[in-house]
Amino acid sequence: MHTLGELAKLVNAELVGDPALTITSLASIDCAQSGQLSYVMSEKYKDQLKNTQASAVIVNKSLQNFCNTNAIVVEDVYLAFAQITHLFKHKVLHMNGVHASAKIHNAAIATNCCIGKNVSIGANTTIGANTVIEDNSVIGSNCLIGSNVNILQSSIIGNSVVIEPGVVIGSEGFGNARDSNKHWHSIAHLGNVVIGNRVHIGANTTIDRGTLEDTHIHKGVRLDNLVHIAHNVVIGEDTAIAACTGVAGSTHIGKRCMIGGMVGVVGHLNVCDDVIVNAKSTIDKNITTPGIYTGIMPLMPHKKWQIVSVWLIKLDKITQYLNIKLTHLKGK
Amino acid sequence: MHTLGELAKLVNAELVGDPALTITSLASIDCAQSGQLSYVMSEKYKDQLKNTQASAVIVNKSLQNFCNTNAIVVEDVYLAFAQITHLFKHKVLHMNGVHASAKIHNAAIATNCCIGKNVSIGANTTIGANTVIEDNSVIGSNCLIGSNVNILQSSIIGNSVVIEPGVVIGSEGFGNARDSNKHWHSIAHLGNVVIGNRVHIGANTTIDRGTLEDTHIHKGVRLDNLVHIAHNVVIGEDTAIAACTGVAGSTHIGKRCMIGGMVGVVGHLNVCDDVIVNAKSTIDKNITTPGIYTGIMPLMPHKKWQIVSVWLIKLDKITQYLNIKLTHLKGK
Amino acid sequence: MHTLGELAKLVNAELVGDPALTITSLASIDCAQSGQLSYVMSEKYKDQLKNTQASAVIVNKSLQNFCNTNAIVVEDVYLAFAQITHLFKHKVLHMNGVHASAKIHNAAIATNCCIGKNVSIGANTTIGANTVIEDNSVIGSNCLIGSNVNILQSSIIGNSVVIEPGVVIGSEGFGNARDSNKHWHSIAHLGNVVIGNRVHIGANTTIDRGTLEDTHIHKGVRLDNLVHIAHNVVIGEDTAIAACTGVAGSTHIGKRCMIGGMVGVVGHLNVCDDVIVNAKSTIDKNITTPGIYTGIMPLMPHKKWQIVSVWLIKLDKITQYLNIKLTHLKGK
Repeated sequence: MHTLGELAKLVNAELVGDPALTITSLASIDCAQSGQLSYVMSEKYKDQLKNTQASAVIVNKSLQNFCNTNAIVVEDVYLAFAQITHLFKHKVLHMNGVHASAKIHNAAIATNCCIGKNVSIGANTTIGANTVIEDNSVIGSNCLIGSNVNILQSSIIGNSVVIEPGVVIGSEGFGNARDSNKHWHSIAHLGNVVIGNRVHIGANTTIDRGTLEDTHIHKGVRLDNLVHIAHNVVIGEDTAIAACTGVAGSTHIGKRCMIGGMVGVVGHLNVCDDVIVNAKSTIDKNITTPGIYTGIMPLMPHKKWQIVSVWLIKLDKITQYLNIKLTHLKGK
Repeated sequence: MHTLGELAKLVNAELVGDPALTITSLASIDCAQSGQLSYVMSEKYKDQLKNTQASAVIVNKSLQNFCNTNAIVVEDVYLAFAQITHLFKHKVLHMNGVHASAKIHNAAIATNCCIGKNVSIGANTTIGANTVIEDNSVIGSNCLIGSNVNILQSSIIGNSVVIEPGVVIGSEGFGNARDSNKHWHSIAHLGNVVIGNRVHIGANTTIDRGTLEDTHIHKGVRLDNLVHIAHNVVIGEDTAIAACTGVAGSTHIGKRCMIGGMVGVVGHLNVCDDVIVNAKSTIDKNITTPGIYTGIMPLMPHKKWQIVSVWLIKLDKITQYLNIKLTHLKGK
Repeated sequence: MHTLGELAKLVNAELVGDPALTITSLASIDCAQSGQLSYVMSEKYKDQLKNTQASAVIVNKSLQNFCNTNAIVVEDVYLAFAQITHLFKHKVLHMNGVHASAKIHNAAIATNCCIGKNVSIGANTTIGANTVIEDNSVIGSNCLIGSNVNILQSSIIGNSVVIEPGVVIGSEGFGNARDSNKHWHSIAHLGNVVIGNRVHIGANTTIDRGTLEDTHIHKGVRLDNLVHIAHNVVIGEDTAIAACTGVAGSTHIGKRCMIGGMVGVVGHLNVCDDVIVNAKSTIDKNITTPGIYTGIMPLMPHKKWQIVSVWLIKLDKITQYLNIKLTHLKGK
């Protein structure tokens, strides 16, 4: 908990409002409640700004006009937000074996595990050797957690979840604000990872925690090895994602999807339910219709590729040369 | 060991045969021997089914006609197989330091290693700190195993093998059966990982165990960092695979191949000996002729790509519009 | 330290020079100083060979003519170099908790960490549980090193560096010499990894050590999860690289670049400052102009892709058929 005055001072802001007001936590503009601080970066969100329940908002000069609550006024909103997040991050101190406050209900814990404060582990769960479970995490019953796994603070894991060795759950997301010198300032990620019942997670896969809200892996999901799930991603029930695939930040994937191996999914997209995407494709736009999708270059002898690829990057010139009009083709 | 009666009951099957018969293990239809249970999902395998040495086979109603041995008759063969596999999986119980039954022949074991039952480690082998080696694994002599490595149950590792930190060997394969509610049921992988002499495996690489038979990495192979090798894959002698490449299930890659970085290899393929595939390509079909292969989109300024990519996905319409016939081009 | 005579004998070489000369270490031809051994594989480097300060050079018969110092003359220079590197590799012996010689300045070390000889750790640095830091590494102050991290021998890490769980720093590079039987011989990597101040490294990312010189991650860099940085790579200040991207050996990336997720960067390239490359692209040539670059196949329904991809690999034939000349297009 910090006062608004402290926060404004930290980021050298003008404070329009009550410096003694206590801020308990941060939240996004449409979720924020009394006692919380939020931020708005663009006029696109001016209606949410006007109507927010937040006790204070970080804004710039021009957005300040739409702010009906306490305002921390700065030039670079995202940078100020990044700096403030660090004040609200729980510090995991010096871990040392199994903490006395951990509630372990008839679970089998192998040697050299480190288990933090207030961790709860359900019945019949097995934790492999050298695994680390940080403060305030909750692990359900009948789980099988492998060796050398890292479950970082405040992760919530359901029942009958299988986690293979080397997995990292709750790592910091790749969110960074850039200052005027083009230096990066990391955002301390304050959201968590929530994993539903019967989820299986393959070896060395990583799942980042959310920025303010949580990253969600819904029940029945299958993630293969070396998959990357970024901050704030939502994966719907019973979706399966094959190895080496990466899902960028804030993308939502629907239920019962099957995403092939080494697929790249761009951030801030929506993929509807019952979509199949073939291995190695890039999902670079929303998918709104169930079906099978592909986008890869076919393999060919290298000598042939050398010739074909020259024409590939001249496709626009070829069509110009041939006087082909896109509108004409569209009619076909 | 389970009786056929127990197994049929587990999957609510009709049992055509002797319920008291003892099943010792599972095997694929062409490898199965007396005492083993197998399964057949398609008429493609009806000849193998007729002639199998298996003591029993999981089949559906229509395949039952070709079965000359005990039959577990179900609607969904693959789902029943998935459920039965779990009964035959060895459970690794609570590991606790170096087990008394481990045979360690003059090897250097760093602190905090966990070594399971009946593990054998050869002379002059070094095991790094915090590494886990599960029950029944065999590690040869003169190996260099890094720190935080996970070698799961019953892995067989040759002599002079180098394994970098963070590697996972013997993780569960990505094999799942889907029930009529579209929920996934994991297959317990009963095969192992077998690694030949002089193999080198890069940091954080993962190698899944086989479903019923083994995943094989033959002698002299080089795998770079963050490579994924799926269940039942075979990599031939002296093949080198660069970083971030993934090989999907049951694919066989020949000898002396050189596979570039971030290549995706689709499952159930054969790549012959002496093949070179350039970085970032997708191997989406069998390769039967040695040579150099490529399949990537060339890099271009984004503005150019925005124009070219529009034409790319209209290539079929362009050729239609121009009245180009594929058969005509083939003659050229 | 080894005498030239010993080294020549190891690789069955003809020694032209003084067998009693002591070699202290290895270096590349343009960096080598007195007391060092180097190697030259091609006439391209004959001028550097003539003028080298190295005390001895591994060469073949034809390059021997340009060598003005002691020469180890072999048929296969690279193979001889690979074999000799192993003699100069520091062996990390049996690690056992925190070594007495480690200098730990008011840092918080969690349980089960292994810290080698002569390691130095700066003030206010936190090291997570089960993390391994090998001999002679230097960690700055105010760092946050996660759990199950591997920092291998002689790594140099600046101040205020954040390393997420599962990271491997200083693994062996993917450098291998092939003998006449097509067997691979690994090069022992003698360079280190040097990481500047304020660098953040995401979960399960791997950074290989250099072959003779170092791999450099300059200050302020952001690497996301599951990124692979190969041997001798240099990443310039304040560059950000998103998840699942791989950078192949000896490539130099400039300052303030933003490289998207799952990008593949081919080896031995130069990317200038202020370059943005979109996710999933392949950087297959030098980039000399700041700007935004892309090279991916657009996603389309699979049925459409099946048709389009047929034409894609016939683009050269289409243009031949249409009598389009590349030179003609270039003029457009």
